[in-house]
Amino acid sequence: MKSATIVGAGLVGSLWAVHLSKAGYKVTILEMRSDLRNVDIAAGKSINLAFSERGWTAFKAVGIDSHVNDIAIPMYGRTIHDTKGNLTYQPYGQEGQAIYSVSRAGINCKLMNIAENIGAENIQILFNEKCIGADLKNGIVHTENTKTGIKSKFESNIVFATDGAFSAIRYRAMQKVDRFEYNQHYIEDGYREILLPANEDGSYKLEKNSLHIWPRGRFMLIALPNEDGSFTCTLFMPFENHEFSFDKLKSKNDVEHFFKEVFSDFYNLMPNIAEVWQDHPLSSLAIIKCYPWAHGKTVLMGDAAHATVPFYGQGMNSGFEDCTIMGQLMDKHDENWELIFDEYQKMRKPEGDAVQDLSLHNYYVMRDYVSDPKFLLQKKFERRIEQLFPGKYTPLYTQVSFTNIPYTEALENGKQQDTYIKGIMEQHDIEKLFSTDKIDALINSLFL
Amino acid sequence: MKSATIVGAGLVGSLWAVHLSKAGYKVTILEMRSDLRNVDIAAGKSINLAFSERGWTAFKAVGIDSHVNDIAIPMYGRTIHDTKGNLTYQPYGQEGQAIYSVSRAGINCKLMNIAENIGAENIQILFNEKCIGADLKNGIVHTENTKTGIKSKFESNIVFATDGAFSAIRYRAMQKVDRFEYNQHYIEDGYREILLPANEDGSYKLEKNSLHIWPRGRFMLIALPNEDGSFTCTLFMPFENHEFSFDKLKSKNDVEHFFKEVFSDFYNLMPNIAEVWQDHPLSSLAIIKCYPWAHGKTVLMGDAAHATVPFYGQGMNSGFEDCTIMGQLMDKHDENWELIFDEYQKMRKPEGDAVQDLSLHNYYVMRDYVSDPKFLLQKKFERRIEQLFPGKYTPLYTQVSFTNIPYTEALENGKQQDTYIKGIMEQHDIEKLFSTDKIDALINSLFL
Repeated sequence: MKSATIVGAGLVGSLWAVHLSKAGYKVTILEMRSDLRNVDIAAGKSINLAFSERGWTAFKAVGIDSHVNDIAIPMYGRTIHDTKGNLTYQPYGQEGQAIYSVSRAGINCKLMNIAENIGAENIQILFNEKCIGADLKNGIVHTENTKTGIKSKFESNIVFATDGAFSAIRYRAMQKVDRFEYNQHYIEDGYREILLPANEDGSYKLEKNSLHIWPRGRFMLIALPNEDGSFTCTLFMPFENHEFSFDKLKSKNDVEHFFKEVFSDFYNLMPNIAEVWQDHPLSSLAIIKCYPWAHGKTVLMGDAAHATVPFYGQGMNSGFEDCTIMGQLMDKHDENWELIFDEYQKMRKPEGDAVQDLSLHNYYVMRDYVSDPKFLLQKKFERRIEQLFPGKYTPLYTQVSFTNIPYTEALENGKQQDTYIKGIMEQHDIEKLFSTDKIDALINSLFL
Repeated sequence: MKSATIVGAGLVGSLWAVHLSKAGYKVTILEMRSDLRNVDIAAGKSINLAFSERGWTAFKAVGIDSHVNDIAIPMYGRTIHDTKGNLTYQPYGQEGQAIYSVSRAGINCKLMNIAENIGAENIQILFNEKCIGADLKNGIVHTENTKTGIKSKFESNIVFATDGAFSAIRYRAMQKVDRFEYNQHYIEDGYREILLPANEDGSYKLEKNSLHIWPRGRFMLIALPNEDGSFTCTLFMPFENHEFSFDKLKSKNDVEHFFKEVFSDFYNLMPNIAEVWQDHPLSSLAIIKCYPWAHGKTVLMGDAAHATVPFYGQGMNSGFEDCTIMGQLMDKHDENWELIFDEYQKMRKPEGDAVQDLSLHNYYVMRDYVSDPKFLLQKKFERRIEQLFPGKYTPLYTQVSFTNIPYTEALENGKQQDTYIKGIMEQHDIEKLFSTDKIDALINSLFL
């Protein structure tokens, strides 16, 4: 029987196992950590992710999309909180379009269950197996069990490294391959999570079906809903050397004063912020670029190949898309893995780069532009143009989050559209002209 | 007694040990390989390096410069070989200025001897000690002896990683430090060495006191003299995807045909080229960038911090300069290592970047520009300006190779001077005007 080893039982690894078992492979997943499903993870104690179209597409490809519905909370738009606590709402797309808040642990547990159910005896997840080395050419992975200390060797036809941004396969083996390009870059901002609990009756303290943003120019706070009525909030901010940076928040007093001043409405919902400030660690944000992604019988997928910053909510979705594409190439090349890997990396490397560019850019959008009246008007025009030219004009955010258009194309289209929109926005008294015949005529002339 | 550990008994490590022992430190050098001095290395079987002013300065700082004279062959200029075998000579600087061909093994052995002699019982070099981990904060290095398998732990006040481009300290410990920036990049060209033997009577087959270049636009062959009458030659060329690339030289026939066509005079000196083609491996060329260079009690020096491509002959020299600067900072900050490391890395990181930029640029100069008549005329003008304004105008090559001006400044000065020179070169009929009053007047107006 054909055999495959997957290193890492995270989101991408678990989903990819389903693909492989459907194609008739006996799959062994080696996971460094213990079984997430045996750990009692309170809702809201896990990082939140935004599941969107590429995620749905990837799940549909193996017929498991219905399983996501019960753990996903739709967010139809952004709610912007200004310094005075005033709210503005910006829909993400057209009526009914949403991105979905999911807990990383929740979706990971679900995917492991699905893999074990669908794969039956053909998918085996081994926990506490830490990768300590690999023979990439020959499809061999060496592990050490973190509980027993026993060292093992796993050999199979093909190996998939889905072991995340700090991939052991990449670090211990790929990086030593001659002419392997590798770059790890940390942006100058870090993040800290804060759990905003539900009201005593279990209801939400903020509008549930929305992603909340407190944009403050150089930094921001965001909040995503959990199923239990709580919100997972994250403060993104420079580590140091700025008027507002993490190094300035040393004492409880500093924290309390900062939130009172800068996020007054949030502070009112959570006056004990200084008490819980240390519940989650201050963490860094890395972008990983490398190439090639394949060597011999081994290939990198997901974060192991192209980890990005979280600002477009596309890290998980692009990893799932890797599975979709790899699945298509598996069919196309009739399981000739040399051809599959070659086409996969040539096709997906530019997509990984584009996701990283998009992610970085969206940090500026979220923390700054969303509170700019010009940006809001621009968004209004975008929806107007979309209505006038249904199917012809698709805003960048829509392309990225609500379609499967390659990220590279979305990025290119987005740049061109931005030029057009800026042309319209330059019109005198543009604020007053919205939806007038004059502007509709201008739009027509630009977009036809 | 104050103690220090140096990882790597290469060029920088051995020199730095001398500094430390003079400052009263007990130094342990941990070297992964066996003792070079016990291996019979035929002259010309080692890579050649170009020792220049910064090397001399570093050696003078600890009073060991006289030891280099007997292993260094001065090269006063470049001899350019065109496709027909015609030669052109370009002096590197003013009368008497030279860069020096040294064998890597030769200078390394010499430095280890010097360290052991000067350091007496205070410098100990332990061979076959492979670094397998480190506690950067606490100055601990873990090793495994490659002969005995015995694992050891070395603890000291301070640790210096001088273990080269693929530094184990950097890879096994620094790279895992949160927010460590790291980039490894391979240029698309590789290299292969060729030994051009001496004549039967021991004489040189090419002019001895010159660096020989066969510039061919996209690739080049170079030759540096050895003490025994041989030359170490190196072919630099793209690995693949070019009209001339290594992947096209598969059979002995291919090699012979290539040399006959492209390097005819070299081929005549060495008609057996196809026979010895495989004596040395095809190797890659990496540029390593990282930051910070220090963490806790541990610091990176030389190639471990800023490995570069070899085209300016400054890899070794910039590593030696690291020692000069670290020595000065040791005095300045009275051995407060936290302050020393902080100033060292802030001061030297831009220098490392500049050496890398200069090195890459000089590949274009060597393989292409040196055979351009315009470039030769430009060089002539540079020397004329230098004569007219002694001390005021220093050509870039001179700044880099014959002074201790920071690389960053040299790079900046070079860019500005290039603009001036291009202004002069744009004069009509410039070839005929050289050394006329008109041009001297123009030079005067530009440079005063």
